[in-house]
Amino acid sequence: MTSQTNDKKLWGGRFAEATDRLVELFNASVGFDQRLAEHDIRGSLAHVAMLGEVSILSAEEVAQIEAGLRDVLSDIRAGTFEWRLDREDVHMNVEAALRDRIGPVAGKLHTARSRNDQVAVDFRLFTKEAALDLASKTRALREVMLAEADKYLGRGEQDAVILPGYTHLQVAQPILLSHWFMAYVAMLERDEGRFRDAAERMDESPLGSSALAGTPWPIDRHATAAALGFARPTANSLDGVGSRDFALEFLSACAILSAHLSRLSEELILYSTFEFGFLTLPDSHTTGSSIMPQKKNPDVSELARGKAGRVFGNLMGLLTVVKGTPLAYNKDLQEDKEGVFDSYDTLSIVLRLYAEMLPKTVWHAEATKAAAARGYSTATDVADFLARQGVPFREAHEVVGGLVGVASRSGRQLWELTDDELRAAHTLLSAEIARQLTVEESVKNRLSYGGSAPQRVREAVDAAKAALDP
Amino acid sequence: MTSQTNDKKLWGGRFAEATDRLVELFNASVGFDQRLAEHDIRGSLAHVAMLGEVSILSAEEVAQIEAGLRDVLSDIRAGTFEWRLDREDVHMNVEAALRDRIGPVAGKLHTARSRNDQVAVDFRLFTKEAALDLASKTRALREVMLAEADKYLGRGEQDAVILPGYTHLQVAQPILLSHWFMAYVAMLERDEGRFRDAAERMDESPLGSSALAGTPWPIDRHATAAALGFARPTANSLDGVGSRDFALEFLSACAILSAHLSRLSEELILYSTFEFGFLTLPDSHTTGSSIMPQKKNPDVSELARGKAGRVFGNLMGLLTVVKGTPLAYNKDLQEDKEGVFDSYDTLSIVLRLYAEMLPKTVWHAEATKAAAARGYSTATDVADFLARQGVPFREAHEVVGGLVGVASRSGRQLWELTDDELRAAHTLLSAEIARQLTVEESVKNRLSYGGSAPQRVREAVDAAKAALDP
Amino acid sequence: MTSQTNDKKLWGGRFAEATDRLVELFNASVGFDQRLAEHDIRGSLAHVAMLGEVSILSAEEVAQIEAGLRDVLSDIRAGTFEWRLDREDVHMNVEAALRDRIGPVAGKLHTARSRNDQVAVDFRLFTKEAALDLASKTRALREVMLAEADKYLGRGEQDAVILPGYTHLQVAQPILLSHWFMAYVAMLERDEGRFRDAAERMDESPLGSSALAGTPWPIDRHATAAALGFARPTANSLDGVGSRDFALEFLSACAILSAHLSRLSEELILYSTFEFGFLTLPDSHTTGSSIMPQKKNPDVSELARGKAGRVFGNLMGLLTVVKGTPLAYNKDLQEDKEGVFDSYDTLSIVLRLYAEMLPKTVWHAEATKAAAARGYSTATDVADFLARQGVPFREAHEVVGGLVGVASRSGRQLWELTDDELRAAHTLLSAEIARQLTVEESVKNRLSYGGSAPQRVREAVDAAKAALDP
Amino acid sequence: MTSQTNDKKLWGGRFAEATDRLVELFNASVGFDQRLAEHDIRGSLAHVAMLGEVSILSAEEVAQIEAGLRDVLSDIRAGTFEWRLDREDVHMNVEAALRDRIGPVAGKLHTARSRNDQVAVDFRLFTKEAALDLASKTRALREVMLAEADKYLGRGEQDAVILPGYTHLQVAQPILLSHWFMAYVAMLERDEGRFRDAAERMDESPLGSSALAGTPWPIDRHATAAALGFARPTANSLDGVGSRDFALEFLSACAILSAHLSRLSEELILYSTFEFGFLTLPDSHTTGSSIMPQKKNPDVSELARGKAGRVFGNLMGLLTVVKGTPLAYNKDLQEDKEGVFDSYDTLSIVLRLYAEMLPKTVWHAEATKAAAARGYSTATDVADFLARQGVPFREAHEVVGGLVGVASRSGRQLWELTDDELRAAHTLLSAEIARQLTVEESVKNRLSYGGSAPQRVREAVDAAKAALDP
Repeated sequence: MTSQTNDKKLWGGRFAEATDRLVELFNASVGFDQRLAEHDIRGSLAHVAMLGEVSILSAEEVAQIEAGLRDVLSDIRAGTFEWRLDREDVHMNVEAALRDRIGPVAGKLHTARSRNDQVAVDFRLFTKEAALDLASKTRALREVMLAEADKYLGRGEQDAVILPGYTHLQVAQPILLSHWFMAYVAMLERDEGRFRDAAERMDESPLGSSALAGTPWPIDRHATAAALGFARPTANSLDGVGSRDFALEFLSACAILSAHLSRLSEELILYSTFEFGFLTLPDSHTTGSSIMPQKKNPDVSELARGKAGRVFGNLMGLLTVVKGTPLAYNKDLQEDKEGVFDSYDTLSIVLRLYAEMLPKTVWHAEATKAAAARGYSTATDVADFLARQGVPFREAHEVVGGLVGVASRSGRQLWELTDDELRAAHTLLSAEIARQLTVEESVKNRLSYGGSAPQRVREAVDAAKAALDP
Repeated sequence: MTSQTNDKKLWGGRFAEATDRLVELFNASVGFDQRLAEHDIRGSLAHVAMLGEVSILSAEEVAQIEAGLRDVLSDIRAGTFEWRLDREDVHMNVEAALRDRIGPVAGKLHTARSRNDQVAVDFRLFTKEAALDLASKTRALREVMLAEADKYLGRGEQDAVILPGYTHLQVAQPILLSHWFMAYVAMLERDEGRFRDAAERMDESPLGSSALAGTPWPIDRHATAAALGFARPTANSLDGVGSRDFALEFLSACAILSAHLSRLSEELILYSTFEFGFLTLPDSHTTGSSIMPQKKNPDVSELARGKAGRVFGNLMGLLTVVKGTPLAYNKDLQEDKEGVFDSYDTLSIVLRLYAEMLPKTVWHAEATKAAAARGYSTATDVADFLARQGVPFREAHEVVGGLVGVASRSGRQLWELTDDELRAAHTLLSAEIARQLTVEESVKNRLSYGGSAPQRVREAVDAAKAALDP
Repeated sequence: MTSQTNDKKLWGGRFAEATDRLVELFNASVGFDQRLAEHDIRGSLAHVAMLGEVSILSAEEVAQIEAGLRDVLSDIRAGTFEWRLDREDVHMNVEAALRDRIGPVAGKLHTARSRNDQVAVDFRLFTKEAALDLASKTRALREVMLAEADKYLGRGEQDAVILPGYTHLQVAQPILLSHWFMAYVAMLERDEGRFRDAAERMDESPLGSSALAGTPWPIDRHATAAALGFARPTANSLDGVGSRDFALEFLSACAILSAHLSRLSEELILYSTFEFGFLTLPDSHTTGSSIMPQKKNPDVSELARGKAGRVFGNLMGLLTVVKGTPLAYNKDLQEDKEGVFDSYDTLSIVLRLYAEMLPKTVWHAEATKAAAARGYSTATDVADFLARQGVPFREAHEVVGGLVGVASRSGRQLWELTDDELRAAHTLLSAEIARQLTVEESVKNRLSYGGSAPQRVREAVDAAKAALDP
Repeated sequence: MTSQTNDKKLWGGRFAEATDRLVELFNASVGFDQRLAEHDIRGSLAHVAMLGEVSILSAEEVAQIEAGLRDVLSDIRAGTFEWRLDREDVHMNVEAALRDRIGPVAGKLHTARSRNDQVAVDFRLFTKEAALDLASKTRALREVMLAEADKYLGRGEQDAVILPGYTHLQVAQPILLSHWFMAYVAMLERDEGRFRDAAERMDESPLGSSALAGTPWPIDRHATAAALGFARPTANSLDGVGSRDFALEFLSACAILSAHLSRLSEELILYSTFEFGFLTLPDSHTTGSSIMPQKKNPDVSELARGKAGRVFGNLMGLLTVVKGTPLAYNKDLQEDKEGVFDSYDTLSIVLRLYAEMLPKTVWHAEATKAAAARGYSTATDVADFLARQGVPFREAHEVVGGLVGVASRSGRQLWELTDDELRAAHTLLSAEIARQLTVEESVKNRLSYGGSAPQRVREAVDAAKAALDP
């Protein structure tokens, strides 16, 4: 990027002294907002076409400006555009380049427009597209996880892969691996909803709000809104240039999705340890150590977990920026973009990586089933058995709690207790009954709606497929 | 609150050693979750009625438990209920009290239910109601601000109160006070939308998810969901007990609303200074100083601004809690409630106070108009005048920038420049033209859609009324 | 708490209208700042004694006020003091009660003082004590962890308990359990340092700054500073009443300590799973499940991990409050206290619980050693062996990486590879050499300073003891 | 930056499948950590020299590697170094380039070292330097503000510029402009202290901790620590590679400094409005508007205020990253750098800009004095006058509060009240007395230590000079 002092500031009329070079550097946003170049030129094209329609500019002027803008855009796309720091931002860079090419008529493009509404419309276009794109990518990951749920459900009850279900990271009750996948499917569905709601709420064009109060020029804001694909123009010009809740809502949706992805990451990291041994991550998505030759590290999941910090920080950052600032536009708002860009990029890649990695991940069904059997995970089933015989649940719970104490102190599982021990705990119990309470039985019985029984999970998978592809 | 060690833990079966007292204190949530007592009992009533419907409990058992629960509820409402710390949480307090009253049959209430789904349903009921209540209160404040906008618009163009419009807190262009109010009306409308979207997305009952995997008991989750006013049951039991994105989304909506209210607060604080002098806050909503007898402090607005910190902190807190925790339930999630309670209480009171205070606030129309005239706020109008004569806007901008420099260096307003000075700057200018560019003219001309011209603001007010009361 | 409207506001002179009741509730801080009652009265006692010394008050007046303050204090300690919401805050409650007891002379206590410096000094006293107390409690936990390190080091190399060392949660290299404890000892030492630095930096008395500008009364601020145990008075009155960086620094130290404790918690939760099986937490510090009779949940660690969220949120909250507020005092600053109280209470209890729980935690040395042997944790030792024979480390790394691939694909450990396989990988290798590379050998060899070899850890333990008890 | 797939991964020995390209991109940190290149090479030079000293490498090997490293460094400095994305990070890029230049002997550099301790030492070097540099820059700004305080104090009481002192942004009491500057001097002094404390606490070299457990090689960690300018090596290898509290403490100090700078910014923005009119910012440090020719915007201060958000977000981000991660190194920690770099860069430029801008800022002494006289700012002085005559302060306060009410309802100042009105309020008052209570008198009387009286401020300025230049 270059900087030339001999370029006249486009707002310099009333200034007697030149801008300090360090101030110029500090103020300049072109280092990051050049990312909005396409949006900026789309906005300008919509604006100039409208200026022609309402006869503020002549057809010839419009044609000249449009040609110039397309020329600039083509240089930007080709990577041959010279971005200049002393031209502050993407808007000034584009406009100055336009003037270099088509002369003073370029100055007419800025009629009835201010940088305040210009940047607002550029940034809304970006954020709306980002929200919709993350909605799609969230949906794509959901489809992948749904397909995994389907795969591990197998063709019948016997095939379905069993996983220990945890609470407090202690084995709680056996569940189906497919049921676990479906939990994330449910989360991702809501995440997508948040992005779509945000996109819809921000679907308004601020273009034409001008500096803050609207403009005396007879512009047609509905036309520019429509040309840019917005549902409608914003209804209040101060709000149009000064509000950033659309970016905050986008970042909130990003933060919540990040929280979900950090949970998924944590589980994959745990499940890929030697100690859990539930799955093997693909070589393509793990890395090694420069000193320990044996290492195979779940880097993708670790980074995905860590990147929650970045996204939370971006949200906190913009909330802080907005806090306590008066209407309408303040320069503080220039700080709105980097966090949105960064959160979008971060989640784009994490969503894609998980969509790629999960189908290549190998689950070890023997290991997960063995783990599910450990830890007295069927104790609730014993208590439920007693309760179904009329024992108040609280009493049944206590009886079985005592049995677990006996078993754990002697290093046995519940089904390894003797008939005498069982009957001593409660007359309705027996070794026969204990033996029936396998993890398969346990899972099969979780028949309540939303439960982990194979037929319930099958229904859930089918419903989720239908929801995705109505 | 009392604590008695001789009370048996309801989960103590397998434990050989008593819980440490400090641990008990640390784990106990009854200090704050007793706030969920009504929701807890509503949940239990729905659950027990359903257990009767599906014949898990007899009609008599159901009747006994229902009577007992109503009895407990009536004590709680009367403030005579003894909350006990050693009973950990609201659920255990209620259930133990129930057992004290109706004996062992109380133990049957917990059939086919776990504390995990119990707390999940209680907390969702609360959060959904909180979201809907803040939606209503946001709407109420919107109505108030709309009424103010209407009031200050007056009966015609001449009556409308003029306010300086600011960017960078420098006077930018004159606007209508009503236009300023309408900016907040627009923000609050989106805030309400966020609360309603959140309420809708969380409108699912987790009850019946049991500990994490569902239950073998033949329960009817659709029935309990309907009885509790939920749109449907959650579709996955792990998700039902382990997800807290509903609380995060609620807190996000709170944080964004807080950001808006902090901006409003900042403006009211500024406008009530001696230096701005735009408004007088009502005595009823200001306070004095214990040492400086003359002080009249805008405490409500200062606190409202500061309380953004609390709400942002609550959001960051819960995001941190959720980050990296494996499925399904972890005790960490007990940290979810206080931030939600606190954010709800905070915003409830701020919204009510602003709805009360704004109509009692007196705006000084002379002062605001005088301020709007200062600071060359009509300079854009001069540039626009030139541009309409065919001067490219950029050139017009520079001409007027030079004139502002001349005027400000000699301490004059634009309309105080001489005819010669004006013509020297541009042949199309004259003293006559400069004099016409008053703040009233300036405002009247902002006729673009969403602009600050009286007729545009009138249309906006009417449209906002129609939207509120269709 | 009660509220009576007939109580006259102490600042009400210039107000024509009564304060709105909801405003009163919103403004009132007595609900939480009554916690500062002791500090407030200490501050008042120091102030009144000084007023006597410099002859602003007569000896008799001083005696009357002192007696009255002590009387109020004794009621507060006895729990018989009536806190009134309509008296706003702790200061006004105490002063009004004083007036009720000793009559109008009570009004002289507020000579040369404002609530601004009064609350500033109260809150500094609290925060300084909190910082020093958390420094002590951090030190106490450090002592406990050091004692554990000592214990598990045993009497000689053979006794020391071996733990798998992890990176990326994959077994990396064997370490000593004592070495693991010593990592936390190092972190806690720095945490203590942060609290002590914070306490020292805030060790200045703002009392006498008055409202914001100092006072014309001939007070002696050095005397009150000394009486209250401060190192010196603050040097600038605006800074004294308006700065809260002391609270921010305290909260930062809390947040960093919380981050460390969350890491410890995560490890204890992992190590207490069935899958890791490294330790058993004491019954006294775990809880059960209301539905799953077998559960033994690491609640203390889960809550301690989750409570990081609360503390981070408190820090973010106060940073937000301070952001962008002008000097000197603003009502926003009333929001400073709850987060400090809450962070202090939270960490106080977590530090105490860990100091109690860790010595009662049982580590399973067989299990940890077996785990350390898994996962090719000695692969680096093989590479190091080759490197010591002159093979460039990068080449050695690659050779051993290949061997691990061979071994893992055939489900064997490195020492189970055949002589042929080893020699094929590198001529310097042999089955003999592989067999020597046990976990004990590996640990014993980590002799670099700060390394995990028993003698290094012994030295570290001895040095840490000396540092604690010089 | 380029990426070539044919480059062999330095850790690829055990991997059967190539790394996915997107994973490579996701994992790669060279895009930002190339900033550590100088630190990395300094670390490597220290390491290789030590390897020679302890005879792990021969003198010739050391010489070869050193020459190669210097060669690489010189290319990096010249900007001709080819950074490659497929080489992941700065470490691998440097090492691979070294191998390209000096052949396989390059592989010996990594003897007794891991990337874990390598990145830890690089990042500590950077963060320590950043902390010390921000300490210096904070000090430099302090010197500037102290010089301003000195300047506006004038040569005697009559010269000193008077400013309104605010609480609640309402005029409270007159103060000296110099006193206001000195408040920031006090804050910046503590800010510097925090950076220096942080630098001191992190002044330990983790180099030689190796992957996590130390190394069997007979390295000399004290030598490398000394060579790199560290006070000592870290005492525990797990802590050395796994802890990031040094970065968190740095970010906390940055956040608190940012909060202070945001307050300063807010005040400068307010004071430069037309409404306050207290100061004129230099043209060199303000910018204009693309549409409003008259605008002169305080962009530097607005951005400086907004950038608090970025820094708070960076702190929140890293706290989140660290939360709940087990020891020792996890890939999540790669997220530690960008926030530190960004916070450092942000504050570096803000501190420099303020140090430049403040001396060029013109204060309007007439305007500030006039403002200080407004708003009954001497009301406390009247109350103090009464109190000195023996009226209890609370009663005096009420009397004067009433007078302010009378005056403000009739639009007068206190000294414009009639003798009758004054005597009616209190017999000790008179028009004579009211007239004496000018703002100059008020300021002159604030003689308490730390107060705003000219002689006190003079002493404070002298003491601050002595502290800076002992």
